[in-house]
Amino acid sequence: MVQTILGKKDFIESLRGKSCTFLLSLSNTKTANIKGISQAGIPGMLYLTPTLDAEFLATGEVRSLKDIASTPKGVPTPALISRAIHLLKPFRNIEFLNLGLEKSLDIDYFKIHNFDIKPSGSIEDGANIDAIDIFEKGVQFGQQYKPDSDYVILGESVPGGTTTALATALALGYDCNDKFSSSFKDVPNSIKNSVVSKALQLSLKENELFAKLSVVADNMLLFNAGFILGSIEKDYRLILAGGTQMAGVLLVVNSILKTMQGDIDSSKLALCTTKWVYDDPNSDLKGLLELLDFDINAYYSEFDFGLSNHMALKLYDKGEAKEGVGAGGALVYGSLNGLDKQSITTCVENFLV
Amino acid sequence: MVQTILGKKDFIESLRGKSCTFLLSLSNTKTANIKGISQAGIPGMLYLTPTLDAEFLATGEVRSLKDIASTPKGVPTPALISRAIHLLKPFRNIEFLNLGLEKSLDIDYFKIHNFDIKPSGSIEDGANIDAIDIFEKGVQFGQQYKPDSDYVILGESVPGGTTTALATALALGYDCNDKFSSSFKDVPNSIKNSVVSKALQLSLKENELFAKLSVVADNMLLFNAGFILGSIEKDYRLILAGGTQMAGVLLVVNSILKTMQGDIDSSKLALCTTKWVYDDPNSDLKGLLELLDFDINAYYSEFDFGLSNHMALKLYDKGEAKEGVGAGGALVYGSLNGLDKQSITTCVENFLV
Repeated sequence: MVQTILGKKDFIESLRGKSCTFLLSLSNTKTANIKGISQAGIPGMLYLTPTLDAEFLATGEVRSLKDIASTPKGVPTPALISRAIHLLKPFRNIEFLNLGLEKSLDIDYFKIHNFDIKPSGSIEDGANIDAIDIFEKGVQFGQQYKPDSDYVILGESVPGGTTTALATALALGYDCNDKFSSSFKDVPNSIKNSVVSKALQLSLKENELFAKLSVVADNMLLFNAGFILGSIEKDYRLILAGGTQMAGVLLVVNSILKTMQGDIDSSKLALCTTKWVYDDPNSDLKGLLELLDFDINAYYSEFDFGLSNHMALKLYDKGEAKEGVGAGGALVYGSLNGLDKQSITTCVENFLV
Repeated sequence: MVQTILGKKDFIESLRGKSCTFLLSLSNTKTANIKGISQAGIPGMLYLTPTLDAEFLATGEVRSLKDIASTPKGVPTPALISRAIHLLKPFRNIEFLNLGLEKSLDIDYFKIHNFDIKPSGSIEDGANIDAIDIFEKGVQFGQQYKPDSDYVILGESVPGGTTTALATALALGYDCNDKFSSSFKDVPNSIKNSVVSKALQLSLKENELFAKLSVVADNMLLFNAGFILGSIEKDYRLILAGGTQMAGVLLVVNSILKTMQGDIDSSKLALCTTKWVYDDPNSDLKGLLELLDFDINAYYSEFDFGLSNHMALKLYDKGEAKEGVGAGGALVYGSLNGLDKQSITTCVENFLV
């Protein structure tokens, strides 16, 4: 059920039977408000998506709204998948990183790490992030954080995040125009391209790395790049759970290392994603990871909704939604703990009845 | 699913819900190269069997060869059973003890304990082991080893190991000529007897216990006898997972204790094996254990391939292969954790498709 994209199978196999903390980074970028840029949520209320995803993952309820976030085509959030895994084989802990939310979580009994971070601006007009500050908050958190488990899965919910990730990677000089994914099957390229090229023009005015990032990035990319570099000396393994956005985080790490002439021992680091991202003809996750100057272990779960007759879930297999809320990492964790396709499918279907 | 051979059911019942480390001791003895002595592996490449078993258990891949080790009759290695259990209900840790391998493991992310031990010689010509050194390495390891779990299962993969175990027990003076098992159903007694009697003649020239062991034993028997004596004061339970070879380890312990006029509190020690060993008309595990001067808890798993139609697996039920790679202990662990016969059978069958 787990396939290797890059690196050796050993890394992921050695996590069988190990305990896992699920960290979910949540952030809003006003980039998501641009019409047609994302379908990760309810039109006009996309800003609520990370909040609702977190509430649903933790409690099975969407407290800040009546229904779970679904796309205009009715593709339900991948939070359903991560939640199903947690019901069938609970994570040791679920904790949240508030990296600038419009609406904070209505949750009492789960650890929410707050960093006094504001939602970032639209990259069309400049994201207006204090990039060094956000990055350093990530580094500090990475240095002090001690999970009560053998390894950590780090997921994200950031509507509009593939657009900011693409703009960021291009601004950093990576040749990756056709490598980034989207929550859409048929990527709205004209809108996205226009937003990204506006962002790039703004970033061209800046010379320095963090100054560029302040204009084109989002809080999740910056904070998690810091988190990786701050935690890399620790003795737990870290799995980035996501597709091209998490690859974007790694590209930021790569550029920072290059600028600082630093080095990274990436042997405790991996990326896990879904089959839908891996198979996506409109993006190239492996290609993105091969742009890195360090080695990275990467895997995907073979899970799909082939056993389901549910129309909304079938859309995943048609290339909509694909990834988010750590779904790929959660599915890999499920495989490592003996969950089979049928039980996951049934559990997800039960949310939609 | 778990039946008691000796001792009380309490020991094994008290391990339900407890976490378990699976330690696999791996060794080559040139005894396996004697034609017809073992069917644990590919003819001419039997020396690869422990390496392949370990790789398959840890990763599901056999990296040092194309196919999983199977016997000339096509009986697949019991590593399939241990791997299936690990997939369905992962061990807390899998670690390897390199007790003299011809080919080291191609594995990066699992703990491999190395002791600078060389493969042992054929007992036909004298095993040529520094028996005290290997034994003391086991004692030291037992004294310092701290598992990150409630109990430890100790398995082995040593082609030719039942022959060395038989020769060892006879050399130590135990009346056990008809009590040792073989990986064959129809034990090639003439070859085995000739090898064992040559080994015994060599051992008769020696008076001292360890001098005898240097001639007739293998590294696994010696190291694990030391491991047991070194770890017996620790607060975790130790399960020897194996058939008559593990009984051989206990007989070595017994002889060493007798020689040293020592004593053992064996209340934290047990042996677990398969039904195929327990039912074997050609050997007598219980009889071997009753030769010990201390009490021992012993159990077997009732698992068999009665639910399978797979020809290669059916051979187990006909008395081929029987045990190895800790299969009996793994099956008992599976039972203690709620796995049923059907799910184990299906999982093993899936490896062979």
